Amino acid sequence: MTQTSTITIADLHQRVDAIFRKVGLNAQQAGALARVIVAGERDACKSHGIYRIEGALRTVKAGKVKPDAVPELDLNQGSAIVRVDAKGGFANPAFELGLPALAERARALGLAALVINDCSHFSALWPEVEAVTGQGLAALVMCPSYATVAPTGGSKPLLGTNPFAFGWPRPDHAPYVFDFATSVAARGELELHRRAGKPLPEGWAIDADGHPTTDPEAALAGAMLPFGGHKGSAIGTMIELLAGIMIGDLTSPEVLDYLGTTTLAPMHGELIIALSPEAFAAGRPGNPFARAENLFESIVGQGARLPSQRRFAARAKSEAEGIALTAAEMEQLDRLLEKGLDAVT
Amino acid sequence: MTQTSTITIADLHQRVDAIFRKVGLNAQQAGALARVIVAGERDACKSHGIYRIEGALRTVKAGKVKPDAVPELDLNQGSAIVRVDAKGGFANPAFELGLPALAERARALGLAALVINDCSHFSALWPEVEAVTGQGLAALVMCPSYATVAPTGGSKPLLGTNPFAFGWPRPDHAPYVFDFATSVAARGELELHRRAGKPLPEGWAIDADGHPTTDPEAALAGAMLPFGGHKGSAIGTMIELLAGIMIGDLTSPEVLDYLGTTTLAPMHGELIIALSPEAFAAGRPGNPFARAENLFESIVGQGARLPSQRRFAARAKSEAEGIALTAAEMEQLDRLLEKGLDAVT
Repeated sequence: MTQTSTITIADLHQRVDAIFRKVGLNAQQAGALARVIVAGERDACKSHGIYRIEGALRTVKAGKVKPDAVPELDLNQGSAIVRVDAKGGFANPAFELGLPALAERARALGLAALVINDCSHFSALWPEVEAVTGQGLAALVMCPSYATVAPTGGSKPLLGTNPFAFGWPRPDHAPYVFDFATSVAARGELELHRRAGKPLPEGWAIDADGHPTTDPEAALAGAMLPFGGHKGSAIGTMIELLAGIMIGDLTSPEVLDYLGTTTLAPMHGELIIALSPEAFAAGRPGNPFARAENLFESIVGQGARLPSQRRFAARAKSEAEGIALTAAEMEQLDRLLEKGLDAVT
Repeated sequence: MTQTSTITIADLHQRVDAIFRKVGLNAQQAGALARVIVAGERDACKSHGIYRIEGALRTVKAGKVKPDAVPELDLNQGSAIVRVDAKGGFANPAFELGLPALAERARALGLAALVINDCSHFSALWPEVEAVTGQGLAALVMCPSYATVAPTGGSKPLLGTNPFAFGWPRPDHAPYVFDFATSVAARGELELHRRAGKPLPEGWAIDADGHPTTDPEAALAGAMLPFGGHKGSAIGTMIELLAGIMIGDLTSPEVLDYLGTTTLAPMHGELIIALSPEAFAAGRPGNPFARAENLFESIVGQGARLPSQRRFAARAKSEAEGIALTAAEMEQLDRLLEKGLDAVT
């Protein structure tokens, strides 16, 4: 039987924050990073929880993120675009800085965009989506990553796993939220199959010669495939265009060139579009929030699921009972706090 | 050997326009409809060409579209949302009316939206995407359709085939454009398999009990499936929310309730978001249009295709040589002009 400890959300935040402060992050960087990591752990989304701390530390150690960056807000008055220059720091404090202006602009104009430039991106998009829906706004969020995905019909890594995320605010419920890679699988899944010595499902990847493969080694040396064939490939390309090139930031191949590895947090930009259902629906029949609930009921009523429900159930449990961590996880937190950057290679 | 006639783009436009005028469409409705039908035929996109005329006439005959509607523009000054009330007419003249204001607003603010309400939607989204890219702007376009697609994990038609379309302007080339259904296949494909007595590919559809089926009859009585599993299902749901509910217009189940059939042009709204690469990239390194060309070269250079290239090749041929129609197609045009609404049931 694995020994587990239960820790409150606030306690876990304090511990993660302390690890980041120890390695030189300023309060703004450390606080924002701790918030998203604790949110992942709280939601039982282990792949975005404390497991991610080491990757952030490695990125600091490699000098590929500025731990003491102070993001700068450009209100860009008279425009529907609000900008934050992350100044080489993590995306998360830059997003927190830009959110109030994005929300205000979207309410005033009906829709608005927040552009984050020069950030080390970390890590899922759903915390940002949920922050926008928390303002009563719908959100479309996207960013590139590292070139690991071949366009459909191609043979070489070019696109990133380019996440595409969306949220719709629900007044009396957790929001409607999805956040997924535009590749068939996440890159970490290939690595997990390799370690387990298990073949990949068909359709996930091609080898270095562009031939379909189920061998994880061959896939890691080759490329992953987009989800949904040419349609997913087109959406991944759209994300390179809008959330890389259009916002004047790196594309996935440029990110990989810059980092030389996929083991560090990627340096690029991010595009967040916020839309006001109240502004769009003004003067039209029906309340958009009530109508959306009817749609969700029709989905759930036929036995289908809304996305993110497993996360929200875990969240409710964590909020009521605290977060359960294994003894090994608690020791890891202690070790990271004690050793700081010496804990990672 | 099939006899074919070659007809210029202008001549075909004149013939299609005359058919629509004959059945009572005003000049604005007829002209806009003829332009998109001729564009489909010109691009060898037969499923959106003159084949569609009868569907439009059936919709007129059923009283489900106002043939003499005059769309109204609401500039909605001070907002990033421009609105056009199609007044129960076709979407196409409403779009043409709203485009200049959308482009002006997107250039001034960085991004803007055009909402079209109360339109009979007809038919692909790429003509609208290309009209926006023709203004030097990127475009995201979406709309619901009729409830024929089950959400992933569900068993009943609820979502539409909900097209999702995107375009990026290319100064010296036809634009980067995709426009696809968020279902695995178009509904017409099921009907074609049924007529041909051919089984459907696996994964296209479920029967009325929610079980996977390859029988076209069972599929038509059941539901189609979204592309890319839960990811496509989520995107289809997003389109119901943004381009149905948010804009205060009908969702796909409401469209089907209103029409009672999938054989007429659907009545709903449409959402067009235009983004200015110049505004987004301002002050950042690199020219977004030149950088995009590098990305496209990397895609094509590894043997992958850019979407819509077959259409653009056909377009170049049609523009140089005219459009080839079979004798049967020419007779159909004559018959439609002669008989008007009596030619359809």
